[in-house]
Amino acid sequence: MSGNRGVVYLGPGKVEVQNIPYPKMQDPQGKQIDHGVILRVVSTNICGSDQHMVRGRTTAPEGLVLGHEITGEVVEIGRGVETMKIGDLVSVPFNVACGHCRTCKEQHTGVCLTVNPSRAGGAYGYVDMGGWVGGQAEYVMVPYADFNLLKLPNRDLAMEKIRDLTCLSDILPTGYHGAVTAGVGPGSTVYIAGAGPVGLAAAASARLLGAAVVIVGDVNPTRLAHAKAQGFEIADLSKDTPLHEQIADLLGEPEVDCAVDAVGFEARGHGHSGSQHEAPATVLNSLMGVVRVAGKIGIPGLYVTEDPGAVDEAAKHGSLSIRFGLGWAKSHSFHTGQTPVMKYNRQLMQAIMWDRIKIADIVGVEVITLDDAPKGYGEFDAGVPKKFVIDPHNLFRAA
Amino acid sequence: MSGNRGVVYLGPGKVEVQNIPYPKMQDPQGKQIDHGVILRVVSTNICGSDQHMVRGRTTAPEGLVLGHEITGEVVEIGRGVETMKIGDLVSVPFNVACGHCRTCKEQHTGVCLTVNPSRAGGAYGYVDMGGWVGGQAEYVMVPYADFNLLKLPNRDLAMEKIRDLTCLSDILPTGYHGAVTAGVGPGSTVYIAGAGPVGLAAAASARLLGAAVVIVGDVNPTRLAHAKAQGFEIADLSKDTPLHEQIADLLGEPEVDCAVDAVGFEARGHGHSGSQHEAPATVLNSLMGVVRVAGKIGIPGLYVTEDPGAVDEAAKHGSLSIRFGLGWAKSHSFHTGQTPVMKYNRQLMQAIMWDRIKIADIVGVEVITLDDAPKGYGEFDAGVPKKFVIDPHNLFRAA
Amino acid sequence: MSGNRGVVYLGPGKVEVQNIPYPKMQDPQGKQIDHGVILRVVSTNICGSDQHMVRGRTTAPEGLVLGHEITGEVVEIGRGVETMKIGDLVSVPFNVACGHCRTCKEQHTGVCLTVNPSRAGGAYGYVDMGGWVGGQAEYVMVPYADFNLLKLPNRDLAMEKIRDLTCLSDILPTGYHGAVTAGVGPGSTVYIAGAGPVGLAAAASARLLGAAVVIVGDVNPTRLAHAKAQGFEIADLSKDTPLHEQIADLLGEPEVDCAVDAVGFEARGHGHSGSQHEAPATVLNSLMGVVRVAGKIGIPGLYVTEDPGAVDEAAKHGSLSIRFGLGWAKSHSFHTGQTPVMKYNRQLMQAIMWDRIKIADIVGVEVITLDDAPKGYGEFDAGVPKKFVIDPHNLFRAA
Amino acid sequence: MSGNRGVVYLGPGKVEVQNIPYPKMQDPQGKQIDHGVILRVVSTNICGSDQHMVRGRTTAPEGLVLGHEITGEVVEIGRGVETMKIGDLVSVPFNVACGHCRTCKEQHTGVCLTVNPSRAGGAYGYVDMGGWVGGQAEYVMVPYADFNLLKLPNRDLAMEKIRDLTCLSDILPTGYHGAVTAGVGPGSTVYIAGAGPVGLAAAASARLLGAAVVIVGDVNPTRLAHAKAQGFEIADLSKDTPLHEQIADLLGEPEVDCAVDAVGFEARGHGHSGSQHEAPATVLNSLMGVVRVAGKIGIPGLYVTEDPGAVDEAAKHGSLSIRFGLGWAKSHSFHTGQTPVMKYNRQLMQAIMWDRIKIADIVGVEVITLDDAPKGYGEFDAGVPKKFVIDPHNLFRAA
Repeated sequence: MSGNRGVVYLGPGKVEVQNIPYPKMQDPQGKQIDHGVILRVVSTNICGSDQHMVRGRTTAPEGLVLGHEITGEVVEIGRGVETMKIGDLVSVPFNVACGHCRTCKEQHTGVCLTVNPSRAGGAYGYVDMGGWVGGQAEYVMVPYADFNLLKLPNRDLAMEKIRDLTCLSDILPTGYHGAVTAGVGPGSTVYIAGAGPVGLAAAASARLLGAAVVIVGDVNPTRLAHAKAQGFEIADLSKDTPLHEQIADLLGEPEVDCAVDAVGFEARGHGHSGSQHEAPATVLNSLMGVVRVAGKIGIPGLYVTEDPGAVDEAAKHGSLSIRFGLGWAKSHSFHTGQTPVMKYNRQLMQAIMWDRIKIADIVGVEVITLDDAPKGYGEFDAGVPKKFVIDPHNLFRAA
Repeated sequence: MSGNRGVVYLGPGKVEVQNIPYPKMQDPQGKQIDHGVILRVVSTNICGSDQHMVRGRTTAPEGLVLGHEITGEVVEIGRGVETMKIGDLVSVPFNVACGHCRTCKEQHTGVCLTVNPSRAGGAYGYVDMGGWVGGQAEYVMVPYADFNLLKLPNRDLAMEKIRDLTCLSDILPTGYHGAVTAGVGPGSTVYIAGAGPVGLAAAASARLLGAAVVIVGDVNPTRLAHAKAQGFEIADLSKDTPLHEQIADLLGEPEVDCAVDAVGFEARGHGHSGSQHEAPATVLNSLMGVVRVAGKIGIPGLYVTEDPGAVDEAAKHGSLSIRFGLGWAKSHSFHTGQTPVMKYNRQLMQAIMWDRIKIADIVGVEVITLDDAPKGYGEFDAGVPKKFVIDPHNLFRAA
Repeated sequence: MSGNRGVVYLGPGKVEVQNIPYPKMQDPQGKQIDHGVILRVVSTNICGSDQHMVRGRTTAPEGLVLGHEITGEVVEIGRGVETMKIGDLVSVPFNVACGHCRTCKEQHTGVCLTVNPSRAGGAYGYVDMGGWVGGQAEYVMVPYADFNLLKLPNRDLAMEKIRDLTCLSDILPTGYHGAVTAGVGPGSTVYIAGAGPVGLAAAASARLLGAAVVIVGDVNPTRLAHAKAQGFEIADLSKDTPLHEQIADLLGEPEVDCAVDAVGFEARGHGHSGSQHEAPATVLNSLMGVVRVAGKIGIPGLYVTEDPGAVDEAAKHGSLSIRFGLGWAKSHSFHTGQTPVMKYNRQLMQAIMWDRIKIADIVGVEVITLDDAPKGYGEFDAGVPKKFVIDPHNLFRAA
Repeated sequence: MSGNRGVVYLGPGKVEVQNIPYPKMQDPQGKQIDHGVILRVVSTNICGSDQHMVRGRTTAPEGLVLGHEITGEVVEIGRGVETMKIGDLVSVPFNVACGHCRTCKEQHTGVCLTVNPSRAGGAYGYVDMGGWVGGQAEYVMVPYADFNLLKLPNRDLAMEKIRDLTCLSDILPTGYHGAVTAGVGPGSTVYIAGAGPVGLAAAASARLLGAAVVIVGDVNPTRLAHAKAQGFEIADLSKDTPLHEQIADLLGEPEVDCAVDAVGFEARGHGHSGSQHEAPATVLNSLMGVVRVAGKIGIPGLYVTEDPGAVDEAAKHGSLSIRFGLGWAKSHSFHTGQTPVMKYNRQLMQAIMWDRIKIADIVGVEVITLDDAPKGYGEFDAGVPKKFVIDPHNLFRAA
C-alpha cells in the first residue's frame, strides 16, 4: 500500500501539503463500503469556493484535507462496483451522490439526501458537506462509483486533452449550469458577473450554447484583460459608468436577455469607491437592473447560510438586502444552488473531445505540482486570471 | 350613447361611485385606435391589489377609475377588429397586451412592451400600468381586442356559470400561475401562504393540477375556517407553533414539495406577537424554510419597487432582507411577476365549463351592485373570506 | 428456505401454476449479485402485454415464468443493499433498471442499457426483456433494489389501499405516461383509444392531470359500459358513425387536444365490419384524424419489432401503413416506448394515499388467488372489464 | 404605382417570369385589409418545397405566383399597422399567421387557424396554403404585418449581411426547428438525412446549438463534397456500406443522439441500387435504426397528404410503410410539421448579426436576377449544392 500526501487547511490563510492517510473504503462515519473505488489522482483543481474556507469565511475545521475537483485513475475497486476496471480514467463530479434517493433520481445530485447527515448535498474536502476526504492529494476514495464516475472514453486522447477534461469535475459544469438556468440559447445576449474561473466557464458555456454575445463584468483589470483576450466583451465595474450604460454601448440597448451571478456572497460594490468594499447583494441587485423583463438569472455563485466574517449582522446569517420589488416588476426568475454536475458532464466531455470548447485556455489553466499548491492558493487569492490545476503524480508532463 | 358610472379612487381609504365618461376608442395618450371594442361590463371584481392602492400604499393618483377584473359583452367594435361581433360575451385578461411585441409573442403578456410608456406591462385601472381606464364601471374599452379577449363559448351556459367565469380575468389564472411556477403536479404536497382570494385560487389550482394535499396558511381565523370548509388543510400562523411543525403534523415531514407566496409585500410576521406587525420578507423567508431541496417557489403575491408606507427605509424602495443563503443551500428557484393571464385562461375556462373546478365557491364569490362597491372594499379590507363581484347591470339576478 | 410456485407459460393459450425454484441472488446469466432483495409477493397483476405472449403473438419460450407487475414484502436482502429492511412493503417498477447507465441517469429507465444483453430495456417475466424471472409467483428477486424499489410509506395504511397501490408497478404509470406524453393538462379535451386497463388508467390519469373531459373509445360494449360507469365519456367504435362525429356530438367540435393510443399492434378496424378484423395501424391513423393541429399523441400501447402472427408480411416485421402525411400536415408529434415507471410512481403513490385517484375501481381490480391465475388469463382475454390481481399469500383477505 | 413581375408556375417543369399585378391590400378572398404592408422585395429564395410543385408532384394550379422566402423593404403601410414605417427592412416568415388564434398565441404559427379556409396553416405562393400571392416578384403584400414581420435592426449592417439574413424567412429556421425538435444540444452527436439546403441549415443549426459532431448523409456526391467543405462529417448513402457502419466509423459507435429528416416524401432508397429509386419511408426507417434509445427525430422534411405522382397507391394518399415497432422498442419520439418561423427568427438574426453562424456559405447562397429564376429552378432540381437567392431589384450588387 502506498502512502498519501494532500493539501490541508490549517486555519485562516494557511494551507500546507502534509502526509495524510491512504484512503480507506469507508464512509465518513467509518462504515465499511463496497461501492467505492480508490483513485490515483491525475489532476485536481483549486476552486474559488476553496478560497472561502481558506480565507476563514466559513466554519471549516483545521486539519481538513481540501479538494473537490478531481480526475483520476482507478487503482482499487470495491466488490460491489460493476462498471469500473483498474486503469480506467475517470472524471469525478464534485458532488457526492448516492444515485438512489429521490433527488438523485430526479437528477438533482447537488442535493443528495443520503451522503450528508447534517443537510442535503455532499462534496469532497468541504466544510458542512458530509465529511468526505478531499482530493487535492495523491489518492482519494470515491463512493457510489458506478453512479458518480464519468469514464473518459480513450486514455490516449484523454491525456492529450487532460487540461480541458480536468475542468469537467466542477468549473465547467458550474459555469454551464449558470448559463443554462439563465436561459441562454442561440442568439442570446448574456451578461456574466465575475471574470474568475466560474465566470469564464459560464461565458465559455454561453458561447457553446449559441449566445450571440457574452459580456463579462469584473472590477479586476487583469481578469478583464484575460476575458477580452478570450474573445468576450467586457464591462469594467471599477469605473463609475453604470453597468447598464456599458451594456448599451456594446449592444445598443441597456439590457441583456440572460444573466449569471458568478460571484456570490463575497461580492464587492461597483464603481470607483464601491469596489473597495464588500457589498453582498450588489451582484444580485445589479443583475435585476440589466436583465430584460421575463428573463432568468442563473446564480451558481455561492451564497451561504452562515458567514461569520460578513460586513453586517444580517449577512452573518445569510440575509441580504435584495431589491426584490424590482425583480418582481420585471417578472424575473432566480435559479440557485450547487450544480448537479452529472446532468451535464457527459455532454461537455463530448464537446471537449470534439474541440467545440477550449475551456482550459478560457479559464487560464496553469498546471502546478502538489508541493506548489499553497503558492497556487496565494496567487489565486490575489486575483490572477488563472485556474490552478495540481498534477500530483507529474502525469501532465509525461502526457 | 349611454352614460357611464364607475368606482373612483379618491385618496387613502376612500372610493366612490361617480359618473365617468363613456369609453372612447382611444389609447391613454389620446390616440384614436381601430383595434378596440367597448364592453358592457357583465361583472368586475374587487382585487386584493386594488386594496394596496386604496390603503394608500402606492402613488395612485386621486380620480383613478379602478378595476382590472372584467367580463363583458361586446357593444361596439373598432373597424380593425376581425373576430368579435356585437353581443359576444368575453373575458378580459387584466393585462393589457399588444400581441406583437417580443414579450407578447413569447406568451409573457404580463410584461408587454407596447402598452405602457413608462415600463413593461399594462393593466386597466391601475397605478403605473399605462393609464388604461378601469372597468369597475358600466362600460369599458379594451384595446387589441382580437388578441386580448377570450370569447366565452355559449351565452346561456356561460351565464349559468358566470360566478365562476368572472374569476378568469385575474384571480384564477393568478393563483394558477403561482401553482404552475411552483412546480405543482400530480402527487405534490403544497403549501400556500395566504388564505385570501389569490391563495384560495392557488389552492384550487393546485388541486386541479393533481396535488396530493394542499395546506393553506394565514393569521386570519375566518379565512382559515373558510379554507378548511373548502377541503384544504390549514396552518394557523397566529399560533406560536412554527410552520414546519404544523406541516409535519399534517404530512409526517416538515417540508412540502412546492410553495406559493400569495401574500406579497404587505406580509405580517408569524406567531402570536409577530402577526401584529408588518414584516415584508416573512413569507419568502418562511417558504425557504419549508420547501424541500430543489423545490420551486411561485410568487404571484405582489412586490413593489416603491412602497412609501413601508416599515423601514429599505422596504420603501422595494429592498427586503431575504435569507438568500438558505434558499441557495437548498437549490431553490424563485418565480415572480404579473401573471400572463392569456397563457392559462382558455384552459381554465374549459375546466370551469366541464365542472372540474368550483372556483366561485372556493374564493367565496359574493355578488354586489355597483353602488355597493365602496362597502365591498371596506369589508374585504377587514379580511372577510369573500371575493366581491360587482354586477353593474344586474345581469346576475337575471341569470 | 421456502418453496415457490408461479404462473408458467406453456405455449399458445396455455398457462399453468407450477412449482418453480425459490429465487436466487443471481442475474439471468447466473452471476451472483449483492444488490438484490427477495420479496414475498403481496400482489401481482395480469397485464394486457402478458396476453400478447399467451396468445402466441410473440417468440416467448415455453417455461417462461410470467409476471412483471409486482408489489411485495422484503424477506431477504443482498449485502450491498443500503436502504431496505426486512418487512418493508415495496412497489416494483416493471422495468428492471441498473441506475447507473446513461439512460437510467436521464430517467429513461424503460430503456436501461445494462440489464438486457440483447437490447435496451429489461422487465420481469417477459420475452426479450433480459430473462429476469417473473413475479406471478410467491417469491421473486429484484435486482438493484436500492434504485428500483419504491417503499410504501406506512404498512397499515398501505394494506388498506393495496388494491390501488398494486397498480403502481405498471398499469397506472403506463396510462399516466400516455397522458403526460400526449400533453394532457388542466382543461384539455382528451381521447383515449382503448377501454382496457391501460386505456382506463390513461383516462384516470388524464382526469388527475386536470383534463376537462375524457372520451374513451372501444369496440367492446362491456368495457365501454364500465368506462361510462366510471364517469368517462365514450365513443363506440363498433358503430358506423365515424369517430370525429362522435367526438363532435360530445364536444361541439370534431377534434380533441390530446390523444392516447392504449391499444397497440393488435388493433382492430373501426365500424361495424371493420371491428371484426385486425388492422394494426387503425388506431394511429384515426388519432391523427381527431387530434388538433400541433397536438401530441401518446403511445403507451405496445408495438413490436417482430409479430409472427400478423395479418400481413409488413406487419410481421413491425412495419405499418401509416398516414404520415396527415400527421405532418397537422404538426403532430408522436411519443412511444415502454413507460419509465420510476419517473412517476412516487407521485402517483402520493395521489393514491391522499385519495386523489381511485385507480382500482376505475380499472376494475378483481383479486384472485394464485391458483385462479389461469382462469383470470382466460376471462381477461375474453374482454371482461377487469384487472386481475393475484394475491399469492392471501394477504388481501387478511387486510 | 409601379408594375410588378414575378415567377409563375405554368405546369410540370415549367416556370416563367411574367408581368403580374401589383399587390393589393386584400386577402385572397378579396376582402380589403388594414393590417398589411406592401414590400419591395429585397431578396427571395428558391426553396426545395417549391420544387415539389414545379416537378408536378402536387395539385398546384397553373398561374400560381411562386415564392415564400421573402426579405423586403416597406413601401406601403395599411392604416391599422402600428410598428412599421416606410423604408424599414424586414424578414418575412414563410408562414402567414394572424397572431390572435389559439395556435398563434401558443407560438404554433405554422398552423394558424385563420389564414387558410381549407386547413390550418398559410404560406405565400404555395398550393393549399391559403392562396396568398407569392413573393418571387418585385413586390409582395404581407398581412398582419405587426405580427408577422421581423424588423432588421440596422439597414447598413443588414445589407452587409443580406446573403445570410435572407435565410431567416425559411431555410435557417426550418433547419433549426429540425435540430431543436431532435433534441440537439451541447455535446450531441447528430445525423442529418439530406445535404440539400434544409439539411445544411439543420447541420449549421446543430453546430450553433453546440453539437459535438454533425454527420450529413446524402446520395449526391457534389452535395456531400460541399457539406464536407463546410466542416461537417458525411455519410455517402449511395455506397453499400450501411449507414450505421458509416456512423460507427466516425463515432466509434453505430448510433447518434439525435437525427433530422431533411428529405421528406420524395426520398430515394439507400445503397448502390436503392438510390436509383424513390422509396418514401426510407429516411424515417433508417433514422429509427441509427438514433439511440429515448432519442428524438426531428422531421422538417415535407410529407404530404396527397401525392398523385407517388410510387404506390398507399403513398399517393400519404400512407407510408413505417417500421413503427422499431421506433417503439427504442422509445423514440417523432416531431413533424411546418416550422413556426417566428419562434426562432429573432434569435437567429442575432446569431447572424454577431457572426455566430455563416449560413449563406453553408447552404451555398448564389444570388441571381429575377430573370434567371427559371434557370435557377433547373439547376437546383439537378442537385447543385446551391441555394438560389433572387435579387429582383439588383440591390445586392449595390450592397
